[in-house]
Amino acid sequence: MERFAWKGNIYHTNEERKIEIFENSWVLCEDGICKGVVKELPEEWKNAKATDFGDKIIIPGLCDLHVHAPQYTYRGTGMDLELLDWLEKYAFPEEASYSDLEYAEKAYSVFVRDLRRSATTRASIFASLHVLATEILMEKLEESGLKTFVGKVNMDRNSPDILRESTKDSAENTENWISESLDKFKNTKPIITPRFTPTCTDELMEKLGEIQKKYGTPVQSHLSENPSEIKWVSELCPDTDFYGEAYDKFGLFGGENRRCIMAHCVYSGEEEQALIKKRGVWIAHCPQSNMNVASGIAPVRQFLDNGLKVGLGSDVAGGSSLSIFRAMTDAVMCSKLRWRLVDSSLHQLSIEDAFYMATRGGGSFFGKVGAFEEEFEMDAVVIDDSALYTPKKLSPHDRFEKLCYLYTDAKIVAKCVSGKMINLN
Amino acid sequence: MERFAWKGNIYHTNEERKIEIFENSWVLCEDGICKGVVKELPEEWKNAKATDFGDKIIIPGLCDLHVHAPQYTYRGTGMDLELLDWLEKYAFPEEASYSDLEYAEKAYSVFVRDLRRSATTRASIFASLHVLATEILMEKLEESGLKTFVGKVNMDRNSPDILRESTKDSAENTENWISESLDKFKNTKPIITPRFTPTCTDELMEKLGEIQKKYGTPVQSHLSENPSEIKWVSELCPDTDFYGEAYDKFGLFGGENRRCIMAHCVYSGEEEQALIKKRGVWIAHCPQSNMNVASGIAPVRQFLDNGLKVGLGSDVAGGSSLSIFRAMTDAVMCSKLRWRLVDSSLHQLSIEDAFYMATRGGGSFFGKVGAFEEEFEMDAVVIDDSALYTPKKLSPHDRFEKLCYLYTDAKIVAKCVSGKMINLN
Repeated sequence: MERFAWKGNIYHTNEERKIEIFENSWVLCEDGICKGVVKELPEEWKNAKATDFGDKIIIPGLCDLHVHAPQYTYRGTGMDLELLDWLEKYAFPEEASYSDLEYAEKAYSVFVRDLRRSATTRASIFASLHVLATEILMEKLEESGLKTFVGKVNMDRNSPDILRESTKDSAENTENWISESLDKFKNTKPIITPRFTPTCTDELMEKLGEIQKKYGTPVQSHLSENPSEIKWVSELCPDTDFYGEAYDKFGLFGGENRRCIMAHCVYSGEEEQALIKKRGVWIAHCPQSNMNVASGIAPVRQFLDNGLKVGLGSDVAGGSSLSIFRAMTDAVMCSKLRWRLVDSSLHQLSIEDAFYMATRGGGSFFGKVGAFEEEFEMDAVVIDDSALYTPKKLSPHDRFEKLCYLYTDAKIVAKCVSGKMINLN
Repeated sequence: MERFAWKGNIYHTNEERKIEIFENSWVLCEDGICKGVVKELPEEWKNAKATDFGDKIIIPGLCDLHVHAPQYTYRGTGMDLELLDWLEKYAFPEEASYSDLEYAEKAYSVFVRDLRRSATTRASIFASLHVLATEILMEKLEESGLKTFVGKVNMDRNSPDILRESTKDSAENTENWISESLDKFKNTKPIITPRFTPTCTDELMEKLGEIQKKYGTPVQSHLSENPSEIKWVSELCPDTDFYGEAYDKFGLFGGENRRCIMAHCVYSGEEEQALIKKRGVWIAHCPQSNMNVASGIAPVRQFLDNGLKVGLGSDVAGGSSLSIFRAMTDAVMCSKLRWRLVDSSLHQLSIEDAFYMATRGGGSFFGKVGAFEEEFEMDAVVIDDSALYTPKKLSPHDRFEKLCYLYTDAKIVAKCVSGKMINLN
């Protein structure tokens, strides 16, 4: 039995999306599982490894529900186009480079290093369509100690020649890769990843649905991100009433034993939201990307009020920042603009809503993850925010809000995933 | 004659808002004035102090046209309200603390230290209404070597008792402070600062207009930031057709020998924009603040197309970040949302537009500032962006764009204002 205890100012959210703060308290971990938060170390824990982090802040690890690893190389560039043109001009040519394994090795080293050093402990990741490069990424992620899902991307139409598979190859390569990688790693698992409806034929989608059924693998894709994309999907799939159905008809839209993440949902209407809820699909809200590729602002307040499952995504390289702190504050800011410019009936998101989405909201995709409640997996990040010193006396709540907005001036000093320490160098 | 030359990858914008890039070139400085950019060091410069910064990036110092120094203490907190409530609940109580000079000393030390370490070389700053605290701020700024305007704020109505002067005191204190501080410092100058129309009676405005005329001091204030504020101003000033007239009728809205900055202009309509142009008023565009206090998005593309003068402002603590890099990318992002959600006839801003506003656009308020053209003042920042390494070969343009989005991972290694070195520790 491995036990440890960390002391500090502990923050997490409860199920009602309220922040709970435990000042100068201990969070307990036994065999990777959280045993709750206590003010004094219990007698039977006196022999556990105890670390007192003093005045530092301890939060659950953040969860990134949507990020494109091969796009990390050009994050922060190519900010002049909206989605479909952006894919053509920037995303597709760059992803094509991952047929070169030497390039993949270099690029994924940087991506995994930066993800490891960040406050993120869990992520659901798009790779490219290349199986070998995807395996390189998975190996590096496994080594990092982070817990992730990784998807070899599927594309068999509407993609440049250098980034398109035949339907047959795409399905076969996916099945082989899944069967081989399913039990290969402890922390890194495959996820079925049709890029989005425009790049996947019905035939391919059908085969991916069969693979999903056979292996029980989760699924991730994009949904209702951009008006032109949505129009295109409605033309490609005249038998559907809304975009979500284009996945659902192939069993690629959640449901029992079919965990599924759909990124964006900026324009998901009532019917689509109802299906998302019915199928238990997780929404990955990616506010920075939705600004950068000029998509719009998702009605996240509505999602939360209606009981939909929502996590946050950095969506690199639609998003330029890998930080989920940034996604938290972008979510709050965008919700204010949406209230002002689009629909004043939906109240702005609070930092509590954002913290909830970044931890429990996204964490639930990975299991009991995202809080310091008993029986949750012990993902924790310890943060030194002393560089944010101000002579004003801040409440614990304000101190946390400030950290979220100004996280780049703070320092992560320790991080664990399921109780295992992560190397921050 | 003091001469130095810096070598690196030099970026600035021209008058047409296009980025000009001089790779591996020298920028020359003589007695604080830029003598242009050259590929090879001329013979007559061989005795100048030459520093080769290798592959680093050299840009003109950034200009912050709108920032509230006393609010720096609570930046990144209190993000749950829109403008008028936010002023009541957060800004006014905090500003009231600056009657305590010990507090002012501590708080302004932190503000000036962080501004000094940032990429900002020039700023136009709101202090609080307290003359003594404002003088502390001015002394600290002078010591920093940055070139700034600082405003003792005027408020004689619609403010809490602890943050309101009598009309007479407000005017007299302002005149005394201006006459004393006008030639006291080399780099730090007073600027007349009626907070905004709702907190200044007509009588006070009239007196401030007289002081402006007598001393030729520039003016700064807020304009058309928020719908409730604008409605309030129209009620307070029934004799005006639009908000800008409430300043203009007192000679506090630009014109000859009346340099003036108006922050925000989110809702400035055609008439107001016409007067802004006629009077040569500088607009301080503060996108992060406009998101945080849910104001909206200013039509910056229209301002630029119509030839209005526009710079950027961090607007701490409406904005949480003091960085003008952040203001640059926020400006681009917000312009995309505006295009998508409000008015698709106004094209999104480019990173070039943003760089222009951050340097030449705001710089022109301070004189010939914001570019490495001959006879411009030599404000320069040298940046090591090696932590942003990517295996992808980036064009010089993309490298710069990436820096703007991810500046927090880069390091400022040297900075000068009018040729004088700034201490970055």
